[in-house]
Amino acid sequence: MPSSAISSSRPVPTIDDVRAAAERIRGRAVLTPLLESPALNARLGGRLLVKAEPLQRTGSFKFRGAYNTLVQLDERQRQGGVVTYSSGNHAQGIAAAAQMLKIPATIVMPADAPQIKIANTRGYGAEVVLYDRYKESREEVGAKIARERNATIVAPYDEPQVIAGQGTCGLEIAAQAKAQGAGLDAVIVCCGGGGLTAGISLAIAAECPGVPVYTAEPEGFDDTRRSLAAGERVSNDPAARSICDALLAPTPGALTFEINRRLIKGGFAVSDAEVRRAMATAFNDLKLVVEPGGAAALASVLAGKFPIAGKTIAVTASGGNVDRETYIAALNQG
Amino acid sequence: MPSSAISSSRPVPTIDDVRAAAERIRGRAVLTPLLESPALNARLGGRLLVKAEPLQRTGSFKFRGAYNTLVQLDERQRQGGVVTYSSGNHAQGIAAAAQMLKIPATIVMPADAPQIKIANTRGYGAEVVLYDRYKESREEVGAKIARERNATIVAPYDEPQVIAGQGTCGLEIAAQAKAQGAGLDAVIVCCGGGGLTAGISLAIAAECPGVPVYTAEPEGFDDTRRSLAAGERVSNDPAARSICDALLAPTPGALTFEINRRLIKGGFAVSDAEVRRAMATAFNDLKLVVEPGGAAALASVLAGKFPIAGKTIAVTASGGNVDRETYIAALNQG
Repeated sequence: MPSSAISSSRPVPTIDDVRAAAERIRGRAVLTPLLESPALNARLGGRLLVKAEPLQRTGSFKFRGAYNTLVQLDERQRQGGVVTYSSGNHAQGIAAAAQMLKIPATIVMPADAPQIKIANTRGYGAEVVLYDRYKESREEVGAKIARERNATIVAPYDEPQVIAGQGTCGLEIAAQAKAQGAGLDAVIVCCGGGGLTAGISLAIAAECPGVPVYTAEPEGFDDTRRSLAAGERVSNDPAARSICDALLAPTPGALTFEINRRLIKGGFAVSDAEVRRAMATAFNDLKLVVEPGGAAALASVLAGKFPIAGKTIAVTASGGNVDRETYIAALNQG
Repeated sequence: MPSSAISSSRPVPTIDDVRAAAERIRGRAVLTPLLESPALNARLGGRLLVKAEPLQRTGSFKFRGAYNTLVQLDERQRQGGVVTYSSGNHAQGIAAAAQMLKIPATIVMPADAPQIKIANTRGYGAEVVLYDRYKESREEVGAKIARERNATIVAPYDEPQVIAGQGTCGLEIAAQAKAQGAGLDAVIVCCGGGGLTAGISLAIAAECPGVPVYTAEPEGFDDTRRSLAAGERVSNDPAARSICDALLAPTPGALTFEINRRLIKGGFAVSDAEVRRAMATAFNDLKLVVEPGGAAALASVLAGKFPIAGKTIAVTASGGNVDRETYIAALNQG
């Protein structure tokens, strides 16, 4: 039996939870394609498979975990509504899933989040409460609202059923790579709080045992990479900045790190310039709109952090919710 | 038995040729997704399904017809190589298919074609010969090269097996719409010389009898729309200009019009501004890079030429091979 969606005991999710999530999201989430470009492969001298989550409902993988969590809420929880905090992709995922399930949703978002993410979140019918990313605690803002409204908090990554939902992306990567005749040498995942990484690593460990999974994080926000090396959770310098708005978590989640410390082989850090070049490559060779945070894993390969020559690597393109100004800057630089 | 690829009698292709083409391209071409955006659907008050051919091998639907034609050439024809003329998407399709089949390819391209199309065509190993779109005849340039090299000409749209190959896109639209629970009210196809339109109309007539198929063309290049109305092939004003570089055929093909006059219900003409807005909508809501000519059908719906309220419409997003300058201009205007 899958664990409770919002459990005080916070059980660590397993592959069984991921498989159960896959059943729940079937027909609700998009089975996104695993893209590749023969021309890009030729330039790289290897085979690069790109999981196209910008084509997912709400434009990022976050819908997977959001729907998997909300659909398991009981009637009393649904009536109280849900509250979450998010820079934007989890916000849209929760808002869209809540709209489908007719659950009221309040989303705490940083005032400097991309306008497209704020507008889309409101477009899905959610109430948006803005806060100052550098002065206020989003957890405290969210907790206060939840108390006032008797609502249920669905944190963006450190929730068992959110992690299980994101893991469906990994089940699909494994199945699609096999169907496309690709034997994977590695999987690289864009990593913020570590929910997608943890979910995918559960799936890959079960479906492709022995295939290493790596994280890709922005420089200055490589807390998971450094935590893996240190053997404990470390935090990022609060002064750090990055264009990867989706990957700015201050430290790995407790649950996600519990999984990732067991299953992740290592990590890479990418610069803003490397991310912009990856966005431009996705434009040129994949015809896929990828947001900065969604391009980190692709950037790690293009920048040679994991040598792809002669190998087959799958990367997540985790989302595509990017303002046109940011996108144009990436195309102009990349 | 399917008709010969390069036949002097030029038989009109049938649904059987389209089905045979589907078998030939299986595992070679990408089964591109039929995308939709719940947020966009909500704004339109209808259901819009977008066949995402920018994700096709070489970035447009043209690979389908190119591969279907070249794979049927006999050994003697393969040794002589192939010659074609194209503004760029058929060029890339032929070049990539020829490279896969180890056939020498020479492509006659207009000197003002998007740089990305010329570069990619060369990238697939083809020889590119440039000509002046407004002063020279590409057919004459191509015929001269073919004579000199004893090569086979594969015209961009008025070839039975090219039309049959493009029709596989229509078979997929029919099957995917059904799988996604969508009963189609209409299909709108981006139309240049009419090869994709003819192929898709054969497929839709067979798979979704009674569902009307329409063309979308640039203003000033709506020769198919006007030819359907006139009952005979008419030409465009040579002074006309459009940003839709892929849709600048001067007049409908003989074979394609033979099919389209029977099966097409009507057509729409879209302005450059409407096309740019459609490209921006594809960026925002679909995360799909669409080139100007590939956005014509989407533009026709967004501009209200076919009222979508309460209806389900499938459109082709035919290609995504667009220079970044052109793309940025579309995002800035759209």
